[in-house]
Amino acid sequence: MINTFCKKPLWECSKTLVAVAQGKVPADTVIANARLVNVCTAEVQDGMDVAIAEGRIAYVGKADHCIGEGTQVINAAGQCIAPGFLDGHIHVESSMMGAGEYARAVVPHGTTGIYWDPHEVCNVLGLKGVEAMAADARRTPLKAMITTPSCVPAVPGFEDTGAAIGPKDVARTMSWGNVVGLGEMMNFPGILAGDDHAHGEVAETLRAGKTVTGHYSLPETDRGLNAYVASGVRCCHESTRAEDALAKMRLGMYAQLRFGSAWQDLPALAAAVTETGIDTRFAMLVSDDTHPHTLVADGHLDHIVRTAVDLGIDAVTAIQMVTINCAQCFQMDHDLGSIAPGKCADIVFLDDLEHLRVTRVLIDGEVVAEEGRALFDLPPYEYPEWVTHSVRLGRAITPETFRMAAPAHAAAKGAARIRAIEVLAGKTSTRETLIDLPALDGLLQSDIEQDALKAFVFERHRETGTFGAGFVKGFGIKRGAMASTVAHDAHNLLVVGANDEDMALAANTLATCGGGMVVVADGKVLALVELPVAGLMDVLPAKDMSEKVHALERAWGQIGCTMPSPFMTMALIPLACLPELRLTNRGLVDCTTFEFTDLLAE
Amino acid sequence: MINTFCKKPLWECSKTLVAVAQGKVPADTVIANARLVNVCTAEVQDGMDVAIAEGRIAYVGKADHCIGEGTQVINAAGQCIAPGFLDGHIHVESSMMGAGEYARAVVPHGTTGIYWDPHEVCNVLGLKGVEAMAADARRTPLKAMITTPSCVPAVPGFEDTGAAIGPKDVARTMSWGNVVGLGEMMNFPGILAGDDHAHGEVAETLRAGKTVTGHYSLPETDRGLNAYVASGVRCCHESTRAEDALAKMRLGMYAQLRFGSAWQDLPALAAAVTETGIDTRFAMLVSDDTHPHTLVADGHLDHIVRTAVDLGIDAVTAIQMVTINCAQCFQMDHDLGSIAPGKCADIVFLDDLEHLRVTRVLIDGEVVAEEGRALFDLPPYEYPEWVTHSVRLGRAITPETFRMAAPAHAAAKGAARIRAIEVLAGKTSTRETLIDLPALDGLLQSDIEQDALKAFVFERHRETGTFGAGFVKGFGIKRGAMASTVAHDAHNLLVVGANDEDMALAANTLATCGGGMVVVADGKVLALVELPVAGLMDVLPAKDMSEKVHALERAWGQIGCTMPSPFMTMALIPLACLPELRLTNRGLVDCTTFEFTDLLAE
Repeated sequence: MINTFCKKPLWECSKTLVAVAQGKVPADTVIANARLVNVCTAEVQDGMDVAIAEGRIAYVGKADHCIGEGTQVINAAGQCIAPGFLDGHIHVESSMMGAGEYARAVVPHGTTGIYWDPHEVCNVLGLKGVEAMAADARRTPLKAMITTPSCVPAVPGFEDTGAAIGPKDVARTMSWGNVVGLGEMMNFPGILAGDDHAHGEVAETLRAGKTVTGHYSLPETDRGLNAYVASGVRCCHESTRAEDALAKMRLGMYAQLRFGSAWQDLPALAAAVTETGIDTRFAMLVSDDTHPHTLVADGHLDHIVRTAVDLGIDAVTAIQMVTINCAQCFQMDHDLGSIAPGKCADIVFLDDLEHLRVTRVLIDGEVVAEEGRALFDLPPYEYPEWVTHSVRLGRAITPETFRMAAPAHAAAKGAARIRAIEVLAGKTSTRETLIDLPALDGLLQSDIEQDALKAFVFERHRETGTFGAGFVKGFGIKRGAMASTVAHDAHNLLVVGANDEDMALAANTLATCGGGMVVVADGKVLALVELPVAGLMDVLPAKDMSEKVHALERAWGQIGCTMPSPFMTMALIPLACLPELRLTNRGLVDCTTFEFTDLLAE
Repeated sequence: MINTFCKKPLWECSKTLVAVAQGKVPADTVIANARLVNVCTAEVQDGMDVAIAEGRIAYVGKADHCIGEGTQVINAAGQCIAPGFLDGHIHVESSMMGAGEYARAVVPHGTTGIYWDPHEVCNVLGLKGVEAMAADARRTPLKAMITTPSCVPAVPGFEDTGAAIGPKDVARTMSWGNVVGLGEMMNFPGILAGDDHAHGEVAETLRAGKTVTGHYSLPETDRGLNAYVASGVRCCHESTRAEDALAKMRLGMYAQLRFGSAWQDLPALAAAVTETGIDTRFAMLVSDDTHPHTLVADGHLDHIVRTAVDLGIDAVTAIQMVTINCAQCFQMDHDLGSIAPGKCADIVFLDDLEHLRVTRVLIDGEVVAEEGRALFDLPPYEYPEWVTHSVRLGRAITPETFRMAAPAHAAAKGAARIRAIEVLAGKTSTRETLIDLPALDGLLQSDIEQDALKAFVFERHRETGTFGAGFVKGFGIKRGAMASTVAHDAHNLLVVGANDEDMALAANTLATCGGGMVVVADGKVLALVELPVAGLMDVLPAKDMSEKVHALERAWGQIGCTMPSPFMTMALIPLACLPELRLTNRGLVDCTTFEFTDLLAE
């Protein structure tokens, strides 16, 4: 596939590289005396130099002959160099940062390229929003390669989003230079059922010679997985068991072993590699979703590689999983993923192969980060008004909005058996739980004793005024309320709380500031993370975002929730493509049968 | 890259595959109870079934649910199945057969796809000739993927050919569905020197997102090789030492380990893999040139895989080198090179992994060969008249044509010191040797005692009447003459002999029959291999061709030459891109300096 993510196409500068390699023209930059992590042969070569010109590698060997007057010489002093790390599946929006600040956060950790599925922003603002974020990314050296979101909305007919994507949109984007494939095809039921819409999107991608990325979250690895792979999907990051990942690789599918902030499957998956002795070319390491505090505290792909090594995966093998394997998955290995002549000079310096600490990063031959710090200038990005004012409620929200009348027979009985969504710490799935709720004054109420909280989802894109209502169990909060416009994947306004007044306050706080995440109690805002960019992100640096999110997490604690990153778990309450019971702006969805269901269980 | 070599593009049949995988629609064919050589993970999986529909693999596992009334079930009975073998670099013309008969010869040996550089026919007939041969290939199931010849003529300015290829031709062919890349860029001196023509051809290929194949025959693996790789060349079959192949792989270049009829580098190269423990994904096995008798007696890629295993390469690793590694080199691994859902159902049955005997071959889901026999019908191909009448001499050839007047001082002395081309059995290179020849009656003569034979090359494409003359040493023949229109790469009419009368007879025999190879002695034709297709090939089956070539080899023996396949060695006498001294229709070429040189060494 033609790669537009380089300083110059190879065919426009190959003569220069050829001259530099032979010492006829001096290199722009020479890296001297490095231990080369050779991902092509899986070797470590000592005492190697790399000569760079035109943003590409011209020569690998002993490069004294490439050094001229103007050549910048970087003495690696025996440190390791590896190809720039590539994240094969990632949603920038999960970082709560715009793409520019995201780049500034991850590049110092060795990430030089990402395969980004911007489906969060696309659900809110459509392809126009994707392009606005991509423009932010283009201000940075990070190669932000886009896969067109395939599932917008995630579950058509069950929720209202700000945009919808279909095969024609996919076809149109495939001609964009920055689009390298199709985003995760979460609609595996559609693929398996032969659905025209899902197959049409895949078809348009294959027809363009680009890569279809996947999402197959069933623990079924036989007929369903075979069918899904046969449709043309090339990779999948949804394995949770080693046998799932192994089955995928055996079927020629790239298994993207995930280790993000919330979904950390790698420890369970590593055995697919460490205990089998298989050829690992079909294994990748990806983050999927990484939150600002993880980026600040732990890092990005460097952290994932370190974790892989801790789990017993050989360091060079682990580095292959974030370099050449990923580049081969996307058929971009002619430009990316190895330190070899002709390739883009995207290079990571590592102190050694034990600590794997990133000390310097080059992209297209330029030093873009050193000792954990990005070297590129990045003024705050000015997103247009339609991006920063995306919360459009079709109604005023007051405490009365949250009153839930019990049906007559329940009111008479003074109680109702309802279906509650039970959330599980650190899991994407939910459970359906039946709860007997009191019906006082004819109204259903949150019941702290039973950890049953009211949950509302308000459509916030097109001012339809629609909302869905239900109950959630599992957060353990004793008072107050939380709201979020990060509410996958439609990102409507989600409110959960112990009383109607605080719920209204939480909702209105976000409606006023353009979206974000908030915790309130007793009529006061305890913590607010403003996310004015599409209601999902801010333009602040990672450190600031991390502090704000920490404050939010502390506020959750203040009102009784001890779950780690509870706002993440909350944000998945509306995600109707995952089991088991979900709430969207259209109502309660049974995600095992994909049908709307009643709140009342009687 | 979009692959046009399949029954249907995946996007036109993926719904069917998805249905078959789930047992909703019966498969066309099910292979049952096989040992699967899984090239994705480098494992062997026992008891596996494969379900096939629309020419593609729908399911891999236990496929009882895919069997319906109309399903053909092939019981593998525990035999191995591997992906169809791919030859990453090959010239069909060397087989002396048209592409149709070539396919019939190689498919039963497990070859399901070839990456074919048709530069022999292109030198004679241009791209029109390539298309004529491709049309012959299309009558067969073999996937004959074409790389546009890059070096026609091989050494511009030093020889006359029937056609010339430049960047514009390359650009034009890149839009052809059957062209997947650029043929071997033999002009590595041009690449290293920054030559516009060579770089232009590479650029047009890269711009089209296709693969540039290489030919770097220097034993230099530092600056020159780096420069060559940096230009965008992705693979090379010219390694003769293990360290060459290893150096290429380390630089991210696919090392194509060659084992053809005449050039058999694999034994010397295997150590690059067996003694290093490297990741072998950049290693391939290729044939380059295979003659009919090798195909009949030994086989094709099956024979090369067996040889690799004999040399200590693991069987599954060796099979990866003719399947997935090759498909990844050409970025066609989404369709070819593995037995996995969605891929073309190109499958080879092997008795076991020790003997590696091919027992059955499927291409696009059809059984196309069994027990060494092709099952597809192939009437003799009717090539048009311009293909079969390609020998166009601009002059009558008589014994007098071969008289070589000695210069005055040599005539006076009765002797002359001349530069002779010394050929070496089984080598592509020649040596320059000085010989003192008698000059009788003012004429230079072949000298049997010193094994010095006259050699003439007549232009035969455009009736220019030009010819070059020199002397050859090394064949050891005592009488008679040989002629050949297979005379790389310009394929002019080459005549070598002990006397002028037999040389004229040999030349005129070929001129009359449209080209071929002939041995004559004492005014009689001892053996003639007619090659009317471009003067390079016939339309006969491999067995017939093999017998004819055997007869030719015996005739060489009758006149004193004991070299194996001497006609091959002879055919390289004009190949001015290889060292050391060569003869073209324009004269003697010093191939170390790339200058014409004098016959007289004084």
